[in-house]
Amino acid sequence: MVYSGDPVLAEDLLFKPEHSLIEQSLHSRMGATTTNGDGFGIGWYGEGATPALFKSVDPAWNDENLRELTTQVRTRLLFAHVRASTGTPVQRSNCHPFRHGDWLWMHNGAVFGFHEMKRDLMFAVDPSLYPDITGSTDSEALFFLALTFGLEDDPVTAVARAVGFVEDLAERSGVANPVQATMAATNGESVWAFRYSSQHQSRTLFHSTNVAQLRDLHPEVEMLRTLSDETRFVVSEPLRDLPGAWREVPESSYGVIQPGEDELRPFAPIRPAHVL
Amino acid sequence: MVYSGDPVLAEDLLFKPEHSLIEQSLHSRMGATTTNGDGFGIGWYGEGATPALFKSVDPAWNDENLRELTTQVRTRLLFAHVRASTGTPVQRSNCHPFRHGDWLWMHNGAVFGFHEMKRDLMFAVDPSLYPDITGSTDSEALFFLALTFGLEDDPVTAVARAVGFVEDLAERSGVANPVQATMAATNGESVWAFRYSSQHQSRTLFHSTNVAQLRDLHPEVEMLRTLSDETRFVVSEPLRDLPGAWREVPESSYGVIQPGEDELRPFAPIRPAHVL
Amino acid sequence: MVYSGDPVLAEDLLFKPEHSLIEQSLHSRMGATTTNGDGFGIGWYGEGATPALFKSVDPAWNDENLRELTTQVRTRLLFAHVRASTGTPVQRSNCHPFRHGDWLWMHNGAVFGFHEMKRDLMFAVDPSLYPDITGSTDSEALFFLALTFGLEDDPVTAVARAVGFVEDLAERSGVANPVQATMAATNGESVWAFRYSSQHQSRTLFHSTNVAQLRDLHPEVEMLRTLSDETRFVVSEPLRDLPGAWREVPESSYGVIQPGEDELRPFAPIRPAHVL
Amino acid sequence: MVYSGDPVLAEDLLFKPEHSLIEQSLHSRMGATTTNGDGFGIGWYGEGATPALFKSVDPAWNDENLRELTTQVRTRLLFAHVRASTGTPVQRSNCHPFRHGDWLWMHNGAVFGFHEMKRDLMFAVDPSLYPDITGSTDSEALFFLALTFGLEDDPVTAVARAVGFVEDLAERSGVANPVQATMAATNGESVWAFRYSSQHQSRTLFHSTNVAQLRDLHPEVEMLRTLSDETRFVVSEPLRDLPGAWREVPESSYGVIQPGEDELRPFAPIRPAHVL
Repeated sequence: MVYSGDPVLAEDLLFKPEHSLIEQSLHSRMGATTTNGDGFGIGWYGEGATPALFKSVDPAWNDENLRELTTQVRTRLLFAHVRASTGTPVQRSNCHPFRHGDWLWMHNGAVFGFHEMKRDLMFAVDPSLYPDITGSTDSEALFFLALTFGLEDDPVTAVARAVGFVEDLAERSGVANPVQATMAATNGESVWAFRYSSQHQSRTLFHSTNVAQLRDLHPEVEMLRTLSDETRFVVSEPLRDLPGAWREVPESSYGVIQPGEDELRPFAPIRPAHVL
Repeated sequence: MVYSGDPVLAEDLLFKPEHSLIEQSLHSRMGATTTNGDGFGIGWYGEGATPALFKSVDPAWNDENLRELTTQVRTRLLFAHVRASTGTPVQRSNCHPFRHGDWLWMHNGAVFGFHEMKRDLMFAVDPSLYPDITGSTDSEALFFLALTFGLEDDPVTAVARAVGFVEDLAERSGVANPVQATMAATNGESVWAFRYSSQHQSRTLFHSTNVAQLRDLHPEVEMLRTLSDETRFVVSEPLRDLPGAWREVPESSYGVIQPGEDELRPFAPIRPAHVL
Repeated sequence: MVYSGDPVLAEDLLFKPEHSLIEQSLHSRMGATTTNGDGFGIGWYGEGATPALFKSVDPAWNDENLRELTTQVRTRLLFAHVRASTGTPVQRSNCHPFRHGDWLWMHNGAVFGFHEMKRDLMFAVDPSLYPDITGSTDSEALFFLALTFGLEDDPVTAVARAVGFVEDLAERSGVANPVQATMAATNGESVWAFRYSSQHQSRTLFHSTNVAQLRDLHPEVEMLRTLSDETRFVVSEPLRDLPGAWREVPESSYGVIQPGEDELRPFAPIRPAHVL
Repeated sequence: MVYSGDPVLAEDLLFKPEHSLIEQSLHSRMGATTTNGDGFGIGWYGEGATPALFKSVDPAWNDENLRELTTQVRTRLLFAHVRASTGTPVQRSNCHPFRHGDWLWMHNGAVFGFHEMKRDLMFAVDPSLYPDITGSTDSEALFFLALTFGLEDDPVTAVARAVGFVEDLAERSGVANPVQATMAATNGESVWAFRYSSQHQSRTLFHSTNVAQLRDLHPEVEMLRTLSDETRFVVSEPLRDLPGAWREVPESSYGVIQPGEDELRPFAPIRPAHVL
């Protein structure tokens, strides 16, 4: 889940059903399936330019520190993630979001064939970045590949090249359909959200619609009056109770939440050029 | 889950689907529902008369130490439990099974109104036993009440008096239907398993049928040939794939697995006598 | 450690050696002895009247979440504690500070004979408060006794009666010198700190001296210029590098940090009146 | 700590002061310094050829599961380790001992400059082994380098080449004195223990002397009568209470505990041959 907007208490975003647009989506993601019981994490921008992280291997629904913390954290930009391990160890360093400098990254999905391709993927990470990898997941590998390919300068091209690199390597390694991903990245100002899979059957991704329009649609919903027009949510699952509130990010697309007009564009991996 | 029989590797009981009569039941209990993700525990008789405990607040399906340990533990009597907290903290001291001396105890269910009745329940525990209570759950309170009422000498009467005490107190406290329980106790020789609820709508409890009979019924199932005639399982959920393997413990009953003939009898709480 | 003063980042209080008056004291308490490796906790006043808690069974020096969190928490009143278990389980519910309503409580020391006296101590707790006890320590028992004796209305009398109750019970139980304590309590406005032991050989307790005076004494210390005159620290160990900065709380005394003039007065337990 | 000998309860090796030759050494290592509070692990040979692992990020002195487990584990070959992190995360996958197939490995010390050299060290690991690296420590890197250089066939040469590789890389990277190590490896039959540092100022390493000789020296020590002549201990710190019981492994040496005669020989790294 991504929240971008006026500063709000994290508790209102994560726990308070009566205050939160995203309650149902979170409820199902944080509590209803065991496959999301392998740790969780939140990253947020508050004091200073560098985002803070709170990550734990406990199931999110058990963590009393998370509940306490969210009553005190007021943020204009929050990433929240619940993890379902696809085989790598359940340890804090494998929990999302991942951070590098002022950037945050998170990923739902998998790199299929990761165990076999891991060495080649790691080797492709820029040597100056390599030592900062602390965990062992495919998700962190994708992040560091994207950093290697220029995430901090041109996020969309960098992610396209990272995904293209994985697909090219997979092809040469005999791995079919290697990438299944919804991914989000932010520098604390803008948020980039991607929906893509090699097989073009990606996990769902939704973003909230314009709050002003929504307010017109649902004048009776009080909380809509307190949300600023700049409020944006990006989530894996649609909210079911507010017709018109959610719009699906199309297959093979990315969206940008940014000052000014948001964008929604097609996404295509960029394969590495092989010198003959 | 209770296993009693020839010494086997705990791994075969808990993890190996192809070797284990109880795989399906465990699979669903240990992996498929988040409500059982609030810690787990096993207790077993091995070296010495006192059972050993391995308990953790991690979800059982994540615990690498549990997998390792079960490859090395060979036991003739195992209690295994996955916990779904009903409000008390997720901490090791609240995980089942509970131990006192050479006895083990576990409980699925709840004492409704526990928060309000806790002080009176604790006060009813024998003062010499009281300091040994280490956790804060209703389940451990039931155990210590049963110990107070003579569990080590006459388990059935003691559990009947413990349940009766709770029901009597609940009545005076205005709590309806306070007890919902399947419970198991063992001294390392015999196992007592109880199915009871104040409302007579108890959670299910099943025991395995006679292995010799089962072997006649399913001559094609190889593993049945390796189990001794003394093998017994008690589980919360039936196995679906071996017709005739499981028999439900009836509502308001208890069973005893013991050297010689097993027993299955009606269970009724014994209320305290109030002096007028 | 207690901090009271202008809102500061918890990081500056707990981790930043160059910014913090209390670095050396914390350094030794949080990192240098294993006896304080049995969990830690912080409680602080931030958003809302109710203080937030962050507690963990990890050694404080390992906890990455603590480091992250303290970069974001700005507080005018912080309690911090590192625990050395005196026998009770290492679990979050046994970590300090303890909270009840808007109050925080922490304790260094021990109630000797606690195991034997636990039942009598627990049953002296007001029945309406009893169910809110979540852990199993002597420290939490002292807190709930003090609450029972009116902590929220008259903290000094309440703590005196709690300590007197323990000493009286110990005498009748054949336990010598039962109380060894430095304790601190706060309602979010004032802080009460106590130094007392039955044997009159209490652990040390220090408070910071008047910042204005200190500034005159050390005009070269830059950070003193940024601390408001209302800044107060209470710590277990003196700082060694700033002569005149710390004053020992005398044996059998208590201090009050409050709006207006602080106080420092003798402390004496109040024994229960036994009806003959 | 390494134990090799007749099967004994792990509890007797790790916790029982009155039964254990190594109590004092363990006491100081497991309890007395915070620097060893960053997790622990044991690996042992019991059921089957593959050793089992029990590892945790809790301080060893707090882990109730460790105490329970060691009352049930009977082993002829045990590795035990307490960790003091040199900067890598405190997580289970970074705890020793490390396992590969039927081999165990542990290491006290550090690879200085590891952060800078990590990438080159990792890419020197055999590609077929690379994906099995699960943690992020210098110690595991040394293990996988040794495996790459043939640990399973010729352990001494393999470790010499691994250390030589690190020293050669360090020289080219401008890192002085990169290796500080006592290391132990076993295949379940023999144990190889190494003491080496680039600066020739290695951490101490001791092995127990011949039990038969020791028995003659101390006929009054009852436990010596129960230990078989094949009993061997290797420890980081000497026992102080049994004169003649411990012999220091000399600087730049290795020892082999094996069926038949043990060995103690000089150890020298083998640098890679650089093709000009």
